[in-house]
Amino acid sequence: MTDKPSKGLADVVAASTALSDIDGKAGRLFYRGYDIHDLAGKISFEECSYLLQRGSLPDVDALAGYAAELAEGRELGTLVTDNIAEIAASQTPMEALRTLISLDSAGDPDKDSNAAEANLRKAARLTAREPILVARYHAARTGGEAPDPDPELGIAGNFLMQITGERPEPRAAEIFDECLVLHADHTMNASTFAARVCAATLSDMHSAIVGALGTLKGPLHGGANEQVMRILEGIEPSEVEENVRRRLADGEKIMGFGHRVYKTEDPRATHLRRMSEELAETSGDDTYYAMSRRMEQVVFDEKGLNPNVDFYAASVYHYLGIPTDLFTPVFSVSRMAGWTAHVIEQHADNRLIRPDSEYVGARDRKWVPIERRVSA
Amino acid sequence: MTDKPSKGLADVVAASTALSDIDGKAGRLFYRGYDIHDLAGKISFEECSYLLQRGSLPDVDALAGYAAELAEGRELGTLVTDNIAEIAASQTPMEALRTLISLDSAGDPDKDSNAAEANLRKAARLTAREPILVARYHAARTGGEAPDPDPELGIAGNFLMQITGERPEPRAAEIFDECLVLHADHTMNASTFAARVCAATLSDMHSAIVGALGTLKGPLHGGANEQVMRILEGIEPSEVEENVRRRLADGEKIMGFGHRVYKTEDPRATHLRRMSEELAETSGDDTYYAMSRRMEQVVFDEKGLNPNVDFYAASVYHYLGIPTDLFTPVFSVSRMAGWTAHVIEQHADNRLIRPDSEYVGARDRKWVPIERRVSA
Repeated sequence: MTDKPSKGLADVVAASTALSDIDGKAGRLFYRGYDIHDLAGKISFEECSYLLQRGSLPDVDALAGYAAELAEGRELGTLVTDNIAEIAASQTPMEALRTLISLDSAGDPDKDSNAAEANLRKAARLTAREPILVARYHAARTGGEAPDPDPELGIAGNFLMQITGERPEPRAAEIFDECLVLHADHTMNASTFAARVCAATLSDMHSAIVGALGTLKGPLHGGANEQVMRILEGIEPSEVEENVRRRLADGEKIMGFGHRVYKTEDPRATHLRRMSEELAETSGDDTYYAMSRRMEQVVFDEKGLNPNVDFYAASVYHYLGIPTDLFTPVFSVSRMAGWTAHVIEQHADNRLIRPDSEYVGARDRKWVPIERRVSA
Repeated sequence: MTDKPSKGLADVVAASTALSDIDGKAGRLFYRGYDIHDLAGKISFEECSYLLQRGSLPDVDALAGYAAELAEGRELGTLVTDNIAEIAASQTPMEALRTLISLDSAGDPDKDSNAAEANLRKAARLTAREPILVARYHAARTGGEAPDPDPELGIAGNFLMQITGERPEPRAAEIFDECLVLHADHTMNASTFAARVCAATLSDMHSAIVGALGTLKGPLHGGANEQVMRILEGIEPSEVEENVRRRLADGEKIMGFGHRVYKTEDPRATHLRRMSEELAETSGDDTYYAMSRRMEQVVFDEKGLNPNVDFYAASVYHYLGIPTDLFTPVFSVSRMAGWTAHVIEQHADNRLIRPDSEYVGARDRKWVPIERRVSA
């Protein structure tokens, strides 16, 4: 009404946040003032989640207290455990997670409160439960049982153990831990924004997270890492160049490249490329890493686009033994830290998010009784 | 980054739409070019839903075809029917609806498609199912059974019958039908916007609707009509003036008044006030209507604020025999028509909705090993 529409709200500042910041020109990402290059590989996902939800990196005691909260938060309610097998049999992974978190609010003792302390507790619980839900879903659909979490392993190591059925190599757990840190928050991405729009009506944290999960499900958002892997699996190594050039010539969008915010390389991609290389070496099979490198080169030559966070995440998760259709759920395991922190922040200084729209439809139509209407 | 933040996106045009339009200064609302005053009381909710989802008012044949689709769409899947009793026992109404629609995607034959035809079918199914889910939820928690829908009654009449257990008076069904028409769409309200943010990642219609339901749940949005009723029920008729003046003096927000978009009376309130008056007369008990009128006058005198759609909806729903905690679910029964139409529109001409944020937190923090951290 007052302004021209900004389709997709590109460059429109929708909220203030103290959680993360991007310098798109320089290709830098910060979590609460820490450069991601300074955190990646140095802090655990638990420390990262604490940092986002509670404001600072924990000291030894604070981390121990948080870890105890997470351990307690892993215990799922009966509404979830009674129904997970039937849900796993009939819903795809992100569809099921959306349902499971929605079911799971039933047993949350803080579900009706948006108070700061209640939100902190719910944030820890949701962060603890998401990997367990993914693992239990996967176990249910494959007819197995997820091993119980090992108190000596963190979220990353336990998740790999529950998904693969084997205790992970320490270095694999470290690498996956770093992946979770890299995906934990990213300013006003679509799912985070959906969570804030929901929370801004003073709806509860579970509702906001359910909305975020449904939003992450979309192929233009969380679904991209899975699609990168499907492409890598679907073509021969020798076909990479021809395949990419043909798809670009057809005007197809190549998943895993380019970002609305970064004008140079996504700093997360730098780390993920390195991890993919390391895992290729360790595994003795560099097929997907080599294909990814080739693909990166062709896309850059043709379009000048850099890989984003989704591109090397695909081969990394594959090397770590994670089934391809769980790549987006893995994204949600990590992003839960950021989503919940954004809900806390929204509730702490709230205003309803209610934009305008521009009307572009028919005008001055007059109602006529149904018998006199002429079919269109 | 580029602009100053617009907190709450007030006056920011977030999307183009051909569905509804508001002239806030003149207090006018249009659905696809029809003035709401020209539609209210003249078209059924089914015609309204068809208009929003399919672009024009149906002729006799088109409406008959749509009604047949709706009748077929009422059949719930087993994942829902098997679990609704347990969910009703442990989740509040909007929490449960969020879960039930998320479960319900499992059986939808079109769930994996965002194609125009698939979206039209899903929109009709969701519109048909929402009132059935509310009624079955209510029956489950009260230990009863919702009567089967009567093919001679429309959505409005069947809903009243299923909730109250009695075939409604024809005029009561007409009034409720008009309520559903009045609530069906309202440009970029928070829940509709949440649905579009979700759909814009090319996520599916069910995910978008689940996000919208969680957003409508918030007391600043769909929850307002319920809160109006709680106030009316919680005070004596003689206390209205004193109660309102005291709450205003305490700086409290009075639910049901004012709107970010309308600068004059919300045109929907005009109709709802009239219905409340009529139902007060018919019922022989004008308590809540009279209290509402008094409250309206005091709020206008003190603050110059007009009632919005939620204010008279409260007493109308009460007179119609709808339990207070189902007022927001009733809102969702109606708004399902608009939400689904917005998802159709978003998918038909999509761009990812990804705003910016303004960073307001700490800067230049340096990581230190956990043993050397000082607790905050």
